[in-house]
Amino acid sequence: MVELKRAGLYESLHRGAIVLSDPTGRVEKSLGHPAMPTYLRSAAKPLQALPVIETGAADRFQLTDSELAVMSGSLNGEDFQVKAVRSILKKANLTEDLLDCGVHRPSHRPTAKAMLSQGIKPLPIHNNCAGKHAAMLVLCAHLGFDPKGYTEKGHPVQNLILETVAQLCDYPAEQIGQGIDGCGVPVFRVPLHSLAGAYARLAAPARANLTPERIQAVERLMKACLAHPEMIAGHERLCTRLMQAAPNRFLAKTGTEGSYALAIPELGLGVALQIEDGAMRALAPCVSEILHQLGILDHQLLDGELKDLHKPVLKNHRSQEVAQLSPVFDLDLT
Amino acid sequence: MVELKRAGLYESLHRGAIVLSDPTGRVEKSLGHPAMPTYLRSAAKPLQALPVIETGAADRFQLTDSELAVMSGSLNGEDFQVKAVRSILKKANLTEDLLDCGVHRPSHRPTAKAMLSQGIKPLPIHNNCAGKHAAMLVLCAHLGFDPKGYTEKGHPVQNLILETVAQLCDYPAEQIGQGIDGCGVPVFRVPLHSLAGAYARLAAPARANLTPERIQAVERLMKACLAHPEMIAGHERLCTRLMQAAPNRFLAKTGTEGSYALAIPELGLGVALQIEDGAMRALAPCVSEILHQLGILDHQLLDGELKDLHKPVLKNHRSQEVAQLSPVFDLDLT
Repeated sequence: MVELKRAGLYESLHRGAIVLSDPTGRVEKSLGHPAMPTYLRSAAKPLQALPVIETGAADRFQLTDSELAVMSGSLNGEDFQVKAVRSILKKANLTEDLLDCGVHRPSHRPTAKAMLSQGIKPLPIHNNCAGKHAAMLVLCAHLGFDPKGYTEKGHPVQNLILETVAQLCDYPAEQIGQGIDGCGVPVFRVPLHSLAGAYARLAAPARANLTPERIQAVERLMKACLAHPEMIAGHERLCTRLMQAAPNRFLAKTGTEGSYALAIPELGLGVALQIEDGAMRALAPCVSEILHQLGILDHQLLDGELKDLHKPVLKNHRSQEVAQLSPVFDLDLT
Repeated sequence: MVELKRAGLYESLHRGAIVLSDPTGRVEKSLGHPAMPTYLRSAAKPLQALPVIETGAADRFQLTDSELAVMSGSLNGEDFQVKAVRSILKKANLTEDLLDCGVHRPSHRPTAKAMLSQGIKPLPIHNNCAGKHAAMLVLCAHLGFDPKGYTEKGHPVQNLILETVAQLCDYPAEQIGQGIDGCGVPVFRVPLHSLAGAYARLAAPARANLTPERIQAVERLMKACLAHPEMIAGHERLCTRLMQAAPNRFLAKTGTEGSYALAIPELGLGVALQIEDGAMRALAPCVSEILHQLGILDHQLLDGELKDLHKPVLKNHRSQEVAQLSPVFDLDLT
């Protein structure tokens, strides 16, 4: 998929698999094994957020588009994102201490640095999964579930989410592998083509075998995400930068451990990607190249503002340019 | 080579190649392609340090064993290591400002933290390559080379080092690929089996086709490294922990970008390893498993004090154990 060259000579490489699926689940193209087992990790977030709309919670609590987007994002802990998550909790009459996602410093370095210099300790609300956890708590509030233990496998909110993920992936819930994610909630493992299928259904729900209510909910969620790329990741982050480079044309969502997914409405296409070794550094070259081969990102973008994503140059401790990552695959789409 | 499982289910894996060589360069065993191109990176350090002994610089400047070891190490920036590098420079009448390796925070977190809290800025001498750079400067001082530009390809000290590396690897100097290393000096690319051969020659120089002077120099360097594992990396670091777990039995030296090498005198063996995707997290499981299969590290060590190296458990932001890395190869040595 992606090769690292030092002084123009091969040093290392990242293998992986890519699947392009239509909304019926038909694999239109694949590189590598289309059934490669893939933990969705954070690529599940839009699927996990969907019940907030479907259950009526979004209407009841008058959630805005940017608040729906922040539920689907892997956040930077930036102030505007923290504000959005706080607003969601407030609207549902929930308190911040219910967030059980653990604590890490904001992914956004300037924010982390500013907090450090001001002696402000990071809170669960700065966690990159705070929006997803807020969504789960909102579901508990709306459906009358005790929020206690909401992160545990078997909690009613997790059962609802598992069912939704299974349906969107068109993969039996009982066959979905489950582990624990970085933030403590269940994480789902499906064949890579099922992730691609799920994102194709996000891209073109009307062409999938879904209920009218679900089609409507998906359309609302996608509209929200596409309108608010800054909520999907944040400043300087891959997903946000790609979405902002071609506004309103696709949803780009990173997982962790090398998974990634794209929903591209204009092509009615879902794309799923898994870097075999889990390396996050391979994602930017890989995803930007896929979007280029699909005709979404042109040469001007790849050689210009997205150059550091498409072919990142690595510098050493003396700031010399010593190596470069480049995508080395051809989806053969012509 | 190494598999990551989340909740017992496959999530990702690291491929790679391993070569076991004898001192004549005969490949005794290999997994993956024995000629996989491999940038030696820091695994070259003992080879780069060898001319310090061979040219007589070590004798002239009365360098101690621990100072020879620190020249071969990828340092932690710990106080005792900084002190050793300063001592080397002083003995050769060199000043610290000549070190042109760039600056990064000490790899040893407690040291980095202490410096930060005391407002002490990291210097080139805290760089993990400071020992290697001191060796290069010592060679300049001894041989009358102008230290100006000592990091550049083509500088006499780099020519001398290239020649030494080529001879130890038994690979033509003109065919060695060269790039720039993390610290600015030339870095060498050879087939993986050549790295294994070089370390076999470190392990059992008398059984290789080397001059008596070189045999003596290698024996002195190996004795120094084996006696001072704390200088090869540092506290909590892979190489040092492995060497201390089986004292005086092997030299373990990490590269970067997934390369690693072992010199095992009692077996007359060199081992070279390259993780294809460059992931450093795969090294500890891989190297400890190789040493186990070679009969050097027993079950008690692997299940005890080295357990976190052999099968590292990954925790999430809530400190839950969520995944584990394990070696999954068999060298079939029986």
